[in-house]
Amino acid sequence: MAIAKGYAATDASKPLTPFTFERREPNADDVVISVKYCGLCHSDIHQARNEWGNSKYPMVPGHEVAGVVTAVGESVTRFKVGDHVGVGCFVNSCVGHATRNVDLEQYMPGLVQTYNDFEADGTTPTYGGYSDSIVVKEGYVLSFPENVPLDSGAPLLCAGITLYSPLRHWNAGPGKKVAIVGMGGLGHMGVKLGAAMGADITVLSQSLSKKEDGLKLGAKEYYATSDAETFKKLAGTFDLIICTVGTVIDWNAYLNLLKIDGAMVLVGVPEHPVPVHAFSVIGGRKSLTGSGIGSIKETQEMLDFCGEHNIVAEIEMIDIKDINEAYERVLKSDVRYRFVIDIATLA
Amino acid sequence: MAIAKGYAATDASKPLTPFTFERREPNADDVVISVKYCGLCHSDIHQARNEWGNSKYPMVPGHEVAGVVTAVGESVTRFKVGDHVGVGCFVNSCVGHATRNVDLEQYMPGLVQTYNDFEADGTTPTYGGYSDSIVVKEGYVLSFPENVPLDSGAPLLCAGITLYSPLRHWNAGPGKKVAIVGMGGLGHMGVKLGAAMGADITVLSQSLSKKEDGLKLGAKEYYATSDAETFKKLAGTFDLIICTVGTVIDWNAYLNLLKIDGAMVLVGVPEHPVPVHAFSVIGGRKSLTGSGIGSIKETQEMLDFCGEHNIVAEIEMIDIKDINEAYERVLKSDVRYRFVIDIATLA
Repeated sequence: MAIAKGYAATDASKPLTPFTFERREPNADDVVISVKYCGLCHSDIHQARNEWGNSKYPMVPGHEVAGVVTAVGESVTRFKVGDHVGVGCFVNSCVGHATRNVDLEQYMPGLVQTYNDFEADGTTPTYGGYSDSIVVKEGYVLSFPENVPLDSGAPLLCAGITLYSPLRHWNAGPGKKVAIVGMGGLGHMGVKLGAAMGADITVLSQSLSKKEDGLKLGAKEYYATSDAETFKKLAGTFDLIICTVGTVIDWNAYLNLLKIDGAMVLVGVPEHPVPVHAFSVIGGRKSLTGSGIGSIKETQEMLDFCGEHNIVAEIEMIDIKDINEAYERVLKSDVRYRFVIDIATLA
Repeated sequence: MAIAKGYAATDASKPLTPFTFERREPNADDVVISVKYCGLCHSDIHQARNEWGNSKYPMVPGHEVAGVVTAVGESVTRFKVGDHVGVGCFVNSCVGHATRNVDLEQYMPGLVQTYNDFEADGTTPTYGGYSDSIVVKEGYVLSFPENVPLDSGAPLLCAGITLYSPLRHWNAGPGKKVAIVGMGGLGHMGVKLGAAMGADITVLSQSLSKKEDGLKLGAKEYYATSDAETFKKLAGTFDLIICTVGTVIDWNAYLNLLKIDGAMVLVGVPEHPVPVHAFSVIGGRKSLTGSGIGSIKETQEMLDFCGEHNIVAEIEMIDIKDINEAYERVLKSDVRYRFVIDIATLA
């Protein structure tokens, strides 16, 4: 087994610290990856701090993993040493099922998360991308298009697919009015991806402080949700609302901004349930729904789409020693728009 | 103007009492109807008691109105004296709009409710079917199929269309597993209509007290929601859940019974908002949605479907003097399955 270096959470209340551990021996169908960059996702913080109540320690977070192939098992056909590759939120799926549901594996039981989980054997812990190497089955490795850099491309593996999948599923495109709620790591990807699909994008953000950026990234309009007039003016406006906000906000007020048969899709997860009034969905036959990442097949489709449209994340690069400070800045929405860890700083 | 007799609520806390009032003069496009039967809908109680906060008094409730045409205006072409007709939840739509949205008028602004509302002029109050006559524009009058009786057919005008519309919209039919939550006035119609569409119907009711009826009306399975095992056993089972319950229940527990991409449709309206966890819809890309009655076009389609399939409501006939007692019995779910007022007892 190979020794890996990384950063880990050792319990819910302590900062992340350097951590040395063993990566599993590669099997015939495995790809060994030298990690170059790893994005910082809000869910890393939720899980490092056990805010979803299912944390396993020590935990090496990170599921926006970009790197270079250093070895492949003998049955691997799609990758060779030197390839630029990515790993997203899961590294196995449909475990215990006879066949893999390639279109909807992300929603099936038997998903193995990239970290804070166990491999298919049920005992080997999975460790994420805050580390210098990772071993992943070929079927769960993504191929980076040539023109997508590893650093600003890393956040596509979670933030990118999290927005791409609902935009596609709910048919964002020409003629569709789409609101992106929240202009953070997820939201700014929604603006870029939705605009590239041809949809008419409006950002609904707490303040107008990022308005210039939003319009530059492709939004046609930008409103502050702190202004009560926004909710009057935009009533009945949108075909689709994608809510990236991970705190409790009044979903009823946003449902009121939908057209008849419109859908509001949650991709952010507030810690607490939010009260919903039946009339908010009955009037206008509206849907409150949600979406979680995407299949590997769809994630590859998203990466290829980003290659075609020259889409990457807006990033702020950090040294891994600054990870705990970065967590605090994420909680204050003080990042434009995604932190990416330069894994070379582990050395 | 013609004098009408009826029963009215005069404020939120008093019982309904006899009430004499004037019906408006019929216009050229109006149909004058002698009301024979009127169903008792739970929303009559909500509104008579101002539980939705928008009640106007005096209020003559009733929007499951079945009767016989006694006169028609000169431009009326579809109805003649003696025809068996119905009036549902609204008597005008898209008021203030250049064109009528015939497919989705029920969700558009400008709907005029059959009672507790004002006609298009904004000043003439509308009074419902707890009365011996009603004057309605031809375009909002439904035609009863020959084999649908006026008494057991009356509840189709609200309870019937309220279930028919979501069953159709979410494609209930062969191969679809559909749960109907609540076995009351709405729920029992869902069982009959869903079964007639060929769907595989399960009833989820508080207890098993109405199980025999449920199976007789077309359900394949029947479970008690008071039994925690029900929620374990049925996890991930349904394509569609239609929730007719008008009190606060834990929607999250029901969302967990849906398959991937399943929808839970609210047609009952609890007085208070219900806390929803984002994970309840994100896991499996599920929808919490709602549906309200149907257009006149769809209501006629529903009546014709009921004619073809010999579907009527299961009713308990009452004298109008017993209306207040019937309200109390509805609140205790003590009715199998819909009260219908015999309007002849007004005389």
